[in-house]
Amino acid sequence: MTVSGESEPGSVRPGGRTARVRAAVLEAAGDTLAEQGFHGLDLAEIARRAEVGKTTVYRRWGTVAGLVADLLADMAEQSLPRAETGSLLEDMRANAALVRRTLTDPRQGALFKAVIAAATSDARTAEALHRFYEVRVAEWAPCVREAVERGELPEGTDAAEVVRAVSAPLYYRFLTSGAPLDEAAAERAASSAVAAARAGVFTSAPVTGRVSHD
Amino acid sequence: MTVSGESEPGSVRPGGRTARVRAAVLEAAGDTLAEQGFHGLDLAEIARRAEVGKTTVYRRWGTVAGLVADLLADMAEQSLPRAETGSLLEDMRANAALVRRTLTDPRQGALFKAVIAAATSDARTAEALHRFYEVRVAEWAPCVREAVERGELPEGTDAAEVVRAVSAPLYYRFLTSGAPLDEAAAERAASSAVAAARAGVFTSAPVTGRVSHD
Repeated sequence: MTVSGESEPGSVRPGGRTARVRAAVLEAAGDTLAEQGFHGLDLAEIARRAEVGKTTVYRRWGTVAGLVADLLADMAEQSLPRAETGSLLEDMRANAALVRRTLTDPRQGALFKAVIAAATSDARTAEALHRFYEVRVAEWAPCVREAVERGELPEGTDAAEVVRAVSAPLYYRFLTSGAPLDEAAAERAASSAVAAARAGVFTSAPVTGRVSHD
Repeated sequence: MTVSGESEPGSVRPGGRTARVRAAVLEAAGDTLAEQGFHGLDLAEIARRAEVGKTTVYRRWGTVAGLVADLLADMAEQSLPRAETGSLLEDMRANAALVRRTLTDPRQGALFKAVIAAATSDARTAEALHRFYEVRVAEWAPCVREAVERGELPEGTDAAEVVRAVSAPLYYRFLTSGAPLDEAAAERAASSAVAAARAGVFTSAPVTGRVSHD
C-alpha cells in the first residue's frame, strides 16, 4: 500500500513505522476536519496532534489538500465490503444503511461535510472525493451485476448508476434539503433505486416510454 | 413582500426605493458568492458593489449570514413555476431539466456550491437553504398530487418525496460523485423518480415486498 501524493514510491510495509506515522497523521487530520472544518487544517498543528515530526508531515504530504487527498484514499481503502445476500433489494438496503450510519455519525458526518464543502472550491480535494466515490461504487457494483445475472434486473443495466441512485437521496438530505436522515429514508433510497432499475431506467435502451403509459 | 431578517416590518412596495436597494444588494451578493465563495462576502464590499450606503446594508441585513438568508429567500420567490403538462413524467422531466440548467450554469452553479458549502458549517445558512428547498418542492408537489388524482400514481403517495427524488441524483453528481451532469442524467433522474413512485415506494404502505419478488 503506497502513501499517495508526496511520499516516496514503493510499498509501505503494514505495521511498519511509515504505516504507523501515516495512521497517526490521518487520524489527527480526520479529527481536526470533523471538529473545525477544512480551514482548521494546518500541517504543523496536525504534526503536533499526531506526535509526529513537522518535517516528516511537510515532506510526505506537502499541503493541506495533499493530506486530505490521502485521507480520502485511506477512507476508500477502509470502506466496508459489500453485502452479498443474494437479493438485490437486501444488498441495497445494507448499502443505504451503511451510508446513513456514516452520514449520521457525529465524527464521520462532520468529516464528510467538511470535505464536501472544501471540494466545492478546491479542485484537488474534489478529485480525491470523486475517486473515493468511484472506489465505493466499484465495491458495491457487483451486487447489481449479479442481480442482472440472476435475472432480477434487465440486461444492460448500468451497475454504477444503480449504486449511486441509492446514495443520492441520502446525500441530498445531508447537504441540501435537511429532511430527516432516518431509517425510513434509507429504506426508500434502496427501494427507489431497485424499483427504477427493475423498470429499466438504468439501461441504455430507453424504456421510459413504457413507464409513462397513462 | 417583506425583506426577511433584520429589516423593518411591513411590506415593500414593488418598484420602490427599498425594493431597488434590495435587488442591487442581492445581485451584488450573488455575484460575489459565485466568484469568491462565502468567505468572500463582506457587507462593506457588497455595499460598494451595489452602490448603496454601507449603513443601509448593515442596518437591513446585519451579518453575512443574514444577507445570504435573504438572497436564498429571494431566489425561492423567483424560482420558476412548475410545469403542468398533464403527464407526470413530462412534468418531472421539466423539473429535472430546470435543476440541471441551474447547477450547470456558471454563475448559478458556483453560487449554489458556495451556499451549500457555507451551510455545512453555518446553522443560519443551513436553515435558509432548507427553506429554499421547501419552497421549491412545494411549487412542484402539485404535479405529483394531480398525478395521483389522474390515477397515474398510487393513493397516499408523498408528493414532496417524489419531487425531492428528482433533484437528488443531480445534486449527488454536483457535490460528491462528479459524474457528468448531462441530459441523460436529468432524464434518468426524472424516470427513476417516476418509476419508484409508480411502484409505490413513496407511499406509507410498504410495498417493497412486491418489488423484491424474485
